[in-house]
Amino acid sequence: MKINSFRPPDRILMGPGPSNVHPRVLQAMARPTIGHLDPEFIRMMDELKVLLRDTFLTKNEVTFPISGPGSLGMEAAVANMVEPGMKVAVCVNGAFGGRIREMVERHGGIPVVVDAPWGQPIDPAKLEDTLSKNKDVKVVAFVHAETSTGARSDIAALSKVAHKYGCLTIADTVTSFGGIPVKVDDWELDVVYSGSQKCLSCPPGLSPITFNDRAVDYVKKRKTKVSSWFMDVSLILSYWSGAKRTYHHTAPINALYGLHEALLLVQEEGLDKAWARHEKNAAMFRAGLEKIGLKSFVTGESSLPELAIVTVPDGVNEAAVRDHLLNKYNIEIGAGLGQLAGKIWRIGLMGYTSNEKNIKLCLKALKDAL
Amino acid sequence: MKINSFRPPDRILMGPGPSNVHPRVLQAMARPTIGHLDPEFIRMMDELKVLLRDTFLTKNEVTFPISGPGSLGMEAAVANMVEPGMKVAVCVNGAFGGRIREMVERHGGIPVVVDAPWGQPIDPAKLEDTLSKNKDVKVVAFVHAETSTGARSDIAALSKVAHKYGCLTIADTVTSFGGIPVKVDDWELDVVYSGSQKCLSCPPGLSPITFNDRAVDYVKKRKTKVSSWFMDVSLILSYWSGAKRTYHHTAPINALYGLHEALLLVQEEGLDKAWARHEKNAAMFRAGLEKIGLKSFVTGESSLPELAIVTVPDGVNEAAVRDHLLNKYNIEIGAGLGQLAGKIWRIGLMGYTSNEKNIKLCLKALKDAL
Repeated sequence: MKINSFRPPDRILMGPGPSNVHPRVLQAMARPTIGHLDPEFIRMMDELKVLLRDTFLTKNEVTFPISGPGSLGMEAAVANMVEPGMKVAVCVNGAFGGRIREMVERHGGIPVVVDAPWGQPIDPAKLEDTLSKNKDVKVVAFVHAETSTGARSDIAALSKVAHKYGCLTIADTVTSFGGIPVKVDDWELDVVYSGSQKCLSCPPGLSPITFNDRAVDYVKKRKTKVSSWFMDVSLILSYWSGAKRTYHHTAPINALYGLHEALLLVQEEGLDKAWARHEKNAAMFRAGLEKIGLKSFVTGESSLPELAIVTVPDGVNEAAVRDHLLNKYNIEIGAGLGQLAGKIWRIGLMGYTSNEKNIKLCLKALKDAL
Repeated sequence: MKINSFRPPDRILMGPGPSNVHPRVLQAMARPTIGHLDPEFIRMMDELKVLLRDTFLTKNEVTFPISGPGSLGMEAAVANMVEPGMKVAVCVNGAFGGRIREMVERHGGIPVVVDAPWGQPIDPAKLEDTLSKNKDVKVVAFVHAETSTGARSDIAALSKVAHKYGCLTIADTVTSFGGIPVKVDDWELDVVYSGSQKCLSCPPGLSPITFNDRAVDYVKKRKTKVSSWFMDVSLILSYWSGAKRTYHHTAPINALYGLHEALLLVQEEGLDKAWARHEKNAAMFRAGLEKIGLKSFVTGESSLPELAIVTVPDGVNEAAVRDHLLNKYNIEIGAGLGQLAGKIWRIGLMGYTSNEKNIKLCLKALKDAL
């Protein structure tokens, strides 16, 4: 087998993530690697924490990126917040809520599921009903933007209900962070994680996470050790905070350069303006979809500007349409997951991908394919 | 706080890792991101597995990179091979053996320690003694090249002893892979993990891992689920192998481009020649150290060509020497860890860093500093 240097094709990434990466982020990642304890690198880490706080709209001291993709951030949140035998309310309205439930079980917790049909948001009244009947629930986990269905839940409302019952919250903002408002402090979210590869226009591989004081205090008072050494936030912090930085694991240096640049780009555009751009482009795209006779699977307030979910019309071979877009137009769109496989397309308009040119080409390609 | 794009200084990385990254690897990482299910990406993944097998000298089907740094690879090996209540013999002759022991405990195992003084290799006779007295040990874990002390253990011999007692083995080859012989099949190692940032001249963030059939069979027959969802090899394989690739987590696309290129560079040089280069340069460096009156902490067969451990001379402020090298020469060398803090320097000659020019400059800088 003769192997050559890999030259990836130039794709327009309109799936559910990764999105297209900004050229400045790619350039940043190609800068020379330095040591993870280099004073210059530690200065960069400190800036990165400031940028993350500004983007999460939080003052949380404990705000940093987990050295792995969003799913590792999800598991880090669960591993730190769940102790064996503990009841955890998990809101499940898609594949990622289901994944949290599975992780709660693996880390010894007992999940109490608050569900909604795929494509629908979680009803805060249903969470309240569950918590009123399960007074021993300590933590509530929910997904802001369900990447598998395109449904947005009102996590400010879910957070309020959780706190009314004395619970701490875990919020998944993988597909919302940078694309729609995520207000960590205003909404009093306790642990929030995200991913680098969606609305931040950065390659996959890092998971920004933030813990407020309540959550940090909770972790400090755990009776058992966190079940994973790598994910134990109290150990990771010896490297990411304090005056003297102690080695925990070797940080993914160049990936962190990329995230730093990506967050700087968000700051340069302005968070409000980034949200407005996602909103405006989504409206344009949805109008275009209607024009060519395609229907949205999720509509109204619970739809997401950064991720359109399109119902596959009857009699259409959905995989053939995706292949056509990829091979003829270099456009990647996503298939359905789990119970929605074959029924929907997931078309992302995230970060750097969200612009008029891509929208027009995608609409043309879809029309052509159909 | 005004934050600008981060411009890292150009360092010569002669610490215990990361090493300097080859320019071709940096260029590869800056290529456009594509989707993790793109047919072109899957083709690249298949090549990457071939390259990893060739470098690990194994035919193991299950050979791929874990999406996180070496310490996550370590924990993935432990998480998959350890079940609650199980006895695991852990060879500890430095910080990384100690880390494995800690992980075994976190995943519910009972570590039985086989130790050696820091700086010494593990004695196979001592392992045999332990296993003969603990017939219920199922797994033996050891570190090939202890990054904290620079000692090389004879893992071919340790593997033989482990198998004599019916145990499976976990081998840490983070600092040996690509620098000195690691012969997975010849030495009958069952689970082997490494890191990208040492002798492969790639940025940190990925952990190559390989499981032989015995280990895969063992994982399949576990009575309990792996305690981490992210690290469960049976789930990860749905994405990394088989005819139909199913999403598990979003792979760190650009980091994988980099590893592909780094392994291609090893193949182009030839594994034998890479080992010989590390060996030859180490001899030159050691001779130079002697000339300026510096002593090696580890000598003879158990010393590592890719990592020299130098005893800090009496009366010398070790941190001031490192600062001088960094600030005046842009050379990073490493400090001691744990019980060796303040007593040694760890000077890496790994991968792309291992060349005559760096050696001469480092010797000059050390002489100057002293």
